[in-house]
Amino acid sequence: MQGKKKNVIVGQSGGPTAAINSSLVGVYKTAIDRGADRVYGMLFGIQGLLEGKYVDLSEHIKNDLDIEILKRTPSSFLGSCRYKLPEIEENREVYKKIFRILEELEIDSFFYIGGNDSMDTIKKLSDYGTEVHSPIRFMGVPKTIDNDLDVTDHTPGYGSAAKYIASITKEIIRDGLVYDLESITIIEIMGRNAGWLAGAAALSNCEDCEGPDMIFLPEMDFDIEKFIEKVRNLQKIKKSIVIAVSEGIHLADGRYICELTETIDQTDSFGHKILTGAARYLAAKVIKEVGCKTRAIEFNTLQRCASHIVSRVDITEAFQVGGAAVKAAFEGETGKMIILKRISDDPYICVTDIFDINKIANVEKKVPREWINESGDYVTQQFINYVKPLIQSELTPIMTNGLPRHLTLKDE
Amino acid sequence: MQGKKKNVIVGQSGGPTAAINSSLVGVYKTAIDRGADRVYGMLFGIQGLLEGKYVDLSEHIKNDLDIEILKRTPSSFLGSCRYKLPEIEENREVYKKIFRILEELEIDSFFYIGGNDSMDTIKKLSDYGTEVHSPIRFMGVPKTIDNDLDVTDHTPGYGSAAKYIASITKEIIRDGLVYDLESITIIEIMGRNAGWLAGAAALSNCEDCEGPDMIFLPEMDFDIEKFIEKVRNLQKIKKSIVIAVSEGIHLADGRYICELTETIDQTDSFGHKILTGAARYLAAKVIKEVGCKTRAIEFNTLQRCASHIVSRVDITEAFQVGGAAVKAAFEGETGKMIILKRISDDPYICVTDIFDINKIANVEKKVPREWINESGDYVTQQFINYVKPLIQSELTPIMTNGLPRHLTLKDE
Repeated sequence: MQGKKKNVIVGQSGGPTAAINSSLVGVYKTAIDRGADRVYGMLFGIQGLLEGKYVDLSEHIKNDLDIEILKRTPSSFLGSCRYKLPEIEENREVYKKIFRILEELEIDSFFYIGGNDSMDTIKKLSDYGTEVHSPIRFMGVPKTIDNDLDVTDHTPGYGSAAKYIASITKEIIRDGLVYDLESITIIEIMGRNAGWLAGAAALSNCEDCEGPDMIFLPEMDFDIEKFIEKVRNLQKIKKSIVIAVSEGIHLADGRYICELTETIDQTDSFGHKILTGAARYLAAKVIKEVGCKTRAIEFNTLQRCASHIVSRVDITEAFQVGGAAVKAAFEGETGKMIILKRISDDPYICVTDIFDINKIANVEKKVPREWINESGDYVTQQFINYVKPLIQSELTPIMTNGLPRHLTLKDE
Repeated sequence: MQGKKKNVIVGQSGGPTAAINSSLVGVYKTAIDRGADRVYGMLFGIQGLLEGKYVDLSEHIKNDLDIEILKRTPSSFLGSCRYKLPEIEENREVYKKIFRILEELEIDSFFYIGGNDSMDTIKKLSDYGTEVHSPIRFMGVPKTIDNDLDVTDHTPGYGSAAKYIASITKEIIRDGLVYDLESITIIEIMGRNAGWLAGAAALSNCEDCEGPDMIFLPEMDFDIEKFIEKVRNLQKIKKSIVIAVSEGIHLADGRYICELTETIDQTDSFGHKILTGAARYLAAKVIKEVGCKTRAIEFNTLQRCASHIVSRVDITEAFQVGGAAVKAAFEGETGKMIILKRISDDPYICVTDIFDINKIANVEKKVPREWINESGDYVTQQFINYVKPLIQSELTPIMTNGLPRHLTLKDE
């Protein structure tokens, strides 16, 4: 039967995570299993698509082993962008161009894996589609290590980042105990406005580790004098002190701590000032005021690309949200985002659901005040109960020649 | 039969590695298997011993599971020090005190796991022992991530650090490809005077990764103008550039690159200036001169404590050198260090041997000039052939609650 083609296209957008390729696999495999003729992948997100850059994913994901390796491959397999679509009334040409490309490819459903900005893209495309009576369905698949997306219980990508942070915090705490000397270690964790990642350092507190001594999140104003006072008090009771801070901690007047130091003028790929240096600034302050041996450790980019240690819960859920998006689209849904709904912390039970993209506010979800302790220097048990299920179980890397294997786009 | 006790004591010294506890286990298990009555562990090395700090290891390593966990535990289980013994003629009291403690504990053999300074300790103790006709045997067990010990083919600890560096370099290279933009990433790797660790970044070049574009070792003088020129040339042929530098790269006049920037005055636990900042300095320079998006990533302390990804070859050899030291001591050797002798690169075959500690020069072994390419910006295939066998195979972490499990000293 020569009918209408059922082709789908999928893109990845925004900063990568260790789980974003598992969502890609979830979209790809579910689409194939449910009868898609072709699964296209846009290169470098919607921006690449506008330049006509896309691939047929079947030419790059050839078998079940490729699928398993791709789940373990860091960074966005298809490349990413941070391109924000203009408002429809501002620039209809862009939308016409996108829809022309999609129609040429006989696209049935369009999937976009990303954070807040990506969901804005889905919203605008589905609004335009409705306006022009397009049959193409548009679905959002959530991801971000920052866990700051609204409505969904958590975002795929966060669990693996949290597991990585908790694991290396544990190692660094042990490293800090090596000499019989007073020492202070200040670790800096990603998170500009939300402290989900920094709070995850608390998970290192377990049977064989005390965890960090203090954790400072950007949800609370940071007071340098009080901080120094707390360090002095801690020093009276223990030798090796480890303190975790979000890169985005700031004074009550809004100035970031990292801006108080003379940093080099690093910017990220989009001209945003890179917010690193808070730990270094505080370490210098501690050396000056407290006089103790102090080191600053930035957890850096690996927080979003350490595929060598990931959470199986996270990778599985990332796959599930990709698959659920395909299922929903094939059943006729459009203009929706897949969300995760937690049924229970312990035993951990979580299911997917779909949510109207128009009802998702473009806000950054922050750590609730009641999940931070009264003195603002640690997370509460509620926070820990929330995060703990998300870091469970492992997806062991597949190793070749002693190194984790990755799947790469074959050269054209 | 009530005979003389056969007790042994073991200590860990210098900076930790991910394999140093495997050597401890090698000493412990081999000593027990070969009939030792007690195995003592000095806390915080010889410095702790002088303060009467030691434990009976059997009270802390209770079963085979403890042994497996200890092999996977980062940082020195017994604590460490950087205490340097005075010359014998300078201060005989220190030696008298140490030998009095050893005699009270009825020590037959003394094992010290460490780098150059630790081997100096073994030399002095064995010299003093000879002088006073002590029957106690003194054996050195090599370790250091820096791989700068003379005579031995390589040092336990280096292989795991190299595997960690190669693995995360691979992840960071992939991360750098995520956007369709020009970008430069400068990674900073440990190594003050020897480039063994930085060179290991080259191992990330394999079927699924190009590897870094340039690697600069401290064995060669660094020329900033030439560096910028090379970056400009690279930019003409590729978008995402990744460059690895040793923390200890320096100008021809000897000034460290990291000293050219205004760094905060961080010092390590022994007052040595911390040599970080080379990557940050160069990133700022690139931004200014080349104008491209640039980031600096310091691989930091995790290079010596990332037990969550280790080389099984390394952990096994670390155990073997510990065991070989016990075997040799129990067979009557003293004043010796265990060394590794490579029989063949491929297939990799390596055996232990013993070497007179008096014949080991207290020098830092550097990367040979012929293992660095002519233009001084990469390592050669010989270097890669040397390191590759050392990062092979894995020792998977034992996980509890989603995190790698560690063994800790039980509280007294």
